Amino acid sequence: MSKILVMGHKNPDTDSICSAIAYANLKKELGFEVEAVRLGTISKETQFILDYLSIDAPRLIEGVNEGDKIILVDHNEEGQSVNNRDAATILEIVDHHKIDLKTSDPINLRFETVGCSSTIISKIYEEKSVKISKEMATVMLSAIMSDTLIFKSPTCTEEDVVQGKKLAKIAELDYEKYGKDLLIAGTSLNDKTAYEIVNIDSKPFEFGSQKALVAQVNTVDISAVLARKDELEKVMRELMEKEGYDFVSLMITDIIVNSTELYVVGDKTLTIKTFGMQEGAETVFLPNVVSRKKQIVPQYTEMAK
Amino acid sequence: MSKILVMGHKNPDTDSICSAIAYANLKKELGFEVEAVRLGTISKETQFILDYLSIDAPRLIEGVNEGDKIILVDHNEEGQSVNNRDAATILEIVDHHKIDLKTSDPINLRFETVGCSSTIISKIYEEKSVKISKEMATVMLSAIMSDTLIFKSPTCTEEDVVQGKKLAKIAELDYEKYGKDLLIAGTSLNDKTAYEIVNIDSKPFEFGSQKALVAQVNTVDISAVLARKDELEKVMRELMEKEGYDFVSLMITDIIVNSTELYVVGDKTLTIKTFGMQEGAETVFLPNVVSRKKQIVPQYTEMAK
Repeated sequence: MSKILVMGHKNPDTDSICSAIAYANLKKELGFEVEAVRLGTISKETQFILDYLSIDAPRLIEGVNEGDKIILVDHNEEGQSVNNRDAATILEIVDHHKIDLKTSDPINLRFETVGCSSTIISKIYEEKSVKISKEMATVMLSAIMSDTLIFKSPTCTEEDVVQGKKLAKIAELDYEKYGKDLLIAGTSLNDKTAYEIVNIDSKPFEFGSQKALVAQVNTVDISAVLARKDELEKVMRELMEKEGYDFVSLMITDIIVNSTELYVVGDKTLTIKTFGMQEGAETVFLPNVVSRKKQIVPQYTEMAK
Repeated sequence: MSKILVMGHKNPDTDSICSAIAYANLKKELGFEVEAVRLGTISKETQFILDYLSIDAPRLIEGVNEGDKIILVDHNEEGQSVNNRDAATILEIVDHHKIDLKTSDPINLRFETVGCSSTIISKIYEEKSVKISKEMATVMLSAIMSDTLIFKSPTCTEEDVVQGKKLAKIAELDYEKYGKDLLIAGTSLNDKTAYEIVNIDSKPFEFGSQKALVAQVNTVDISAVLARKDELEKVMRELMEKEGYDFVSLMITDIIVNSTELYVVGDKTLTIKTFGMQEGAETVFLPNVVSRKKQIVPQYTEMAK
């Protein structure tokens, strides 16, 4: 029998890479000849895991060929799948997304409404009585930490928590600390200039008679971003001058604690009135605020009337 | 939470009924409020099981309503499924057929390339550590015996055999004897007249200069059919006279041993030459012959040239 290729979706996230690695390992333990492969670039978050474990990334493939045997993880829809998929034979799919699939023969499907594909794979190890190594526990835990934002995402289920904690024990890892390190690696802004940070996602608005730019950057470490306040202020002032903004607001949003530090350069009057920023301060902490569209712009607009 | 309905496909076979009963029982053991239902008439084979266990058939339903929660077993395609399915929410599907499905949300899917849905359900009992009662073991064993023709069908897998034998042990049943009784009940011709038996599936042919009718009836007990030879001969002779056939051949095919007893009324010359029937005999046993189209008609045709 030719080698079976195990793969996640295009533009792979951590779950797609880790689930491919963990499921390929399980199939290998069960006696199959398999190889985990990937359909795109490794993200910084995923690279953190590979570096942590000193393992190589799965081999990058461009497509599959006639007669290839494949196992899909973390996706099922053709548009997200490997190029030329119809030429191959799908043997199995392990996934946690909605399904859109038509096959000409029966295949093995394992779909569960959990937060992470690796949660399902961890259960299958258990069901097949295959011992989970420390390395594979770390791989699967990483995927769960990433997909569930350390069990805090609304998509996280009881099953994710049960498997995640079990894997953390095998991996001998403090999942909160490790998960935070992982997410930090994924949102690291270290290699970004202040100009890039302000321009990742910025939109101009008019609030009453004032013209403003509201930018947003996601992080897991607000203080690390604020440590670069001098650089950021320089960029924000340049934008004000160039575009004629009365002020520039930068939302520094912590995706773990679901809150935003709002940093304002220029006229602070509207922010003081709208969000209760202290006179003389440059920032205000907004708990449970993450959405510019729903939690910042309408409030500025309303107050400026 | 409202009651969840568990159901197999329309025109239900034994697997569809038994899997619905067994999976509903499993969900009940896991704390859910569920009811097994059915979409059509109980077959004679399935009735044998219900009578054996003195249990009622699942409730017959015509369709589902807005807001109903349903679990599908032994099918997934809409055409085979309950009327008005789109109005309901599908929570889970356990199946062993090819898939043709599109959902708007993630759902739980458990598809395996085995011979019987109850094989998968038996595995899930094990995975969830739910004890299988003697009654439920009999229900699931029955479905496996039916779908795999007592492990002899080409669709039967190693997993079906493993689960089937495990269930037979729990049910304290000799699976070969029980399976045969079950299949006999399903193919029982007791309520059919000789005329009906000959006409279940008959086709006229011309072999050289001879005109003939070749009929076929499936059974698991050739001798029970041959015991009615006098009645059958009368019907076959009437057909010869009415339609001007030189002979009428009745294939009495044992679906368990995959062989046919060929019973011939009228001119036996061609059958003697083609299939080596003894001079003076009325029947000939043909091992491994089950297909009229491939194993009887071409051979008659060739010999008559």
